[in-house]
Amino acid sequence: MTLRYHTPLGPEIQRAHGIADPQPMAIADRVRFAELDVLNHVNNKAYMTWFETLRVWYFDLLCTPLLPAGAPRPRTILRSAEIRYHEEMLMGEDYIATTRVSAFRNTSFTYDQQIWSDGRLRTAYTCVIVMMAPDGSARLAIPQVLRDAFLNRDKASFEG
Amino acid sequence: MTLRYHTPLGPEIQRAHGIADPQPMAIADRVRFAELDVLNHVNNKAYMTWFETLRVWYFDLLCTPLLPAGAPRPRTILRSAEIRYHEEMLMGEDYIATTRVSAFRNTSFTYDQQIWSDGRLRTAYTCVIVMMAPDGSARLAIPQVLRDAFLNRDKASFEG
Amino acid sequence: MTLRYHTPLGPEIQRAHGIADPQPMAIADRVRFAELDVLNHVNNKAYMTWFETLRVWYFDLLCTPLLPAGAPRPRTILRSAEIRYHEEMLMGEDYIATTRVSAFRNTSFTYDQQIWSDGRLRTAYTCVIVMMAPDGSARLAIPQVLRDAFLNRDKASFEG
Amino acid sequence: MTLRYHTPLGPEIQRAHGIADPQPMAIADRVRFAELDVLNHVNNKAYMTWFETLRVWYFDLLCTPLLPAGAPRPRTILRSAEIRYHEEMLMGEDYIATTRVSAFRNTSFTYDQQIWSDGRLRTAYTCVIVMMAPDGSARLAIPQVLRDAFLNRDKASFEG
Repeated sequence: MTLRYHTPLGPEIQRAHGIADPQPMAIADRVRFAELDVLNHVNNKAYMTWFETLRVWYFDLLCTPLLPAGAPRPRTILRSAEIRYHEEMLMGEDYIATTRVSAFRNTSFTYDQQIWSDGRLRTAYTCVIVMMAPDGSARLAIPQVLRDAFLNRDKASFEG
Repeated sequence: MTLRYHTPLGPEIQRAHGIADPQPMAIADRVRFAELDVLNHVNNKAYMTWFETLRVWYFDLLCTPLLPAGAPRPRTILRSAEIRYHEEMLMGEDYIATTRVSAFRNTSFTYDQQIWSDGRLRTAYTCVIVMMAPDGSARLAIPQVLRDAFLNRDKASFEG
Repeated sequence: MTLRYHTPLGPEIQRAHGIADPQPMAIADRVRFAELDVLNHVNNKAYMTWFETLRVWYFDLLCTPLLPAGAPRPRTILRSAEIRYHEEMLMGEDYIATTRVSAFRNTSFTYDQQIWSDGRLRTAYTCVIVMMAPDGSARLAIPQVLRDAFLNRDKASFEG
Repeated sequence: MTLRYHTPLGPEIQRAHGIADPQPMAIADRVRFAELDVLNHVNNKAYMTWFETLRVWYFDLLCTPLLPAGAPRPRTILRSAEIRYHEEMLMGEDYIATTRVSAFRNTSFTYDQQIWSDGRLRTAYTCVIVMMAPDGSARLAIPQVLRDAFLNRDKASFEG
């Protein structure tokens, strides 16, 4: 099956690639030589870049359009993260990175992110993001439109 | 026009994206957040990874299949390089990386590589590769099948 | 006070730099320009490299010398990790990366790692490492000499 | 001989480490695990980071103090570069990165940079930098105090 890269993949395509529980954002990419280390597999740090790339797309495509036009983009700061490596990845392998917001509080929210390749979960990542004013001076309450999207679209839980 | 990523692009598609002189290998990809620096444009080092990625595909797809089956893959070492930055690149831009072998000697050859985006040349890179035995112990003469491919397919010049 | 980089720092020097609870391995380094992102502070991924660098030194300096001379070095695989970002870091700041083994089981162990700068904890990281045979074929029991070092030197807990 | 890292090294120390022609700026550092690739030597891209790091120190320590206090720092853009790899580098090796301005025109200048390790030249790099207004809007003439420093301190040639 042909895989489209750098393009949001809908629920059916996700299922066709073995992701039983489709996510609000899923984008495919391929392992690069530069991501290998001396053990000839993808180094543990490379996954952080993959997840970061997808978070930027998630926010730009699924959050920013909900905010008032022309409003300055909030600054989002990584507060903490957890990662679990299930199976190594090798040169040239295709993968699908998925993400959703799984929980939120008044000024922070949690991303659940995964890497799938060849129908198997390779890496699972969870991180907490704090929302700040654009100039970084203070925490910002998550706007109501984003809270609604997290609840309804992502089925996130509110942990206020 | 839809751009296919991570897939060799033929001469007509290359021309359609503004590459007047199509190259033997051309593959599309997209700028990642991690490739930006404090100036908010792609850092000069990121292009090195893009060219490296494409050289690996070039050798795996256009050279290795010409070598005797089961022969150990020669080691290729970067000896020197030149790069010229024509125009900066920004977050999320698509680009096509192209490559050909433009010249060769008995044990070394030269890659010409370019980055094209939105119909404009962004970066041009040239590097010299030395071919070594798989264990790195000695220089290796470029096999005749590769010399033929460099001459006939890539229109490389022999600079013996 | 002059800080010595790339050199194991003893307990007194660690305390002099604000690390109240000195660790078995502590090495200083300095933030590089390449580690900044568009927000002009150290990107979250850079810390992973700092911790990785220190784990290699820890194993090479404090574990390998305990193993039988000439024995092949076990392969160590990162299984999972947690990180918490306490305070951002900026261009040119000095930091001390610290590490100890805080727990172990029969074939795995846990590193506690921290980044200190200007007397304040900036980042805390914990990761679980699985010990494998040198060829990666099977899990390896942690040798007794390493178990003893983890218990006695690092005050690690055995969680068998 | 003990090597001081992350500290400008004077002419005598440079000579003591095999650099026959001492440079205006020389700073020592050490190879990290993350800089190795599957061939188990320093990947060709890592040197770009080392040279970039040193250019930032050069400009901050030897140029910025010459400019009027409080003046906005000019933006410096990499226009082109050449690199030659003389000898590979391995895990844990110490190196000294050196730099000088070797030539300048009205709005651009050339850095000559080298990596020395164990008394041998490992990599030589030359790059051309364009000086821009702080907002990137236009080229900026190199201020007279910098021209004087390039001429007198670095023995650069004016190629107007």
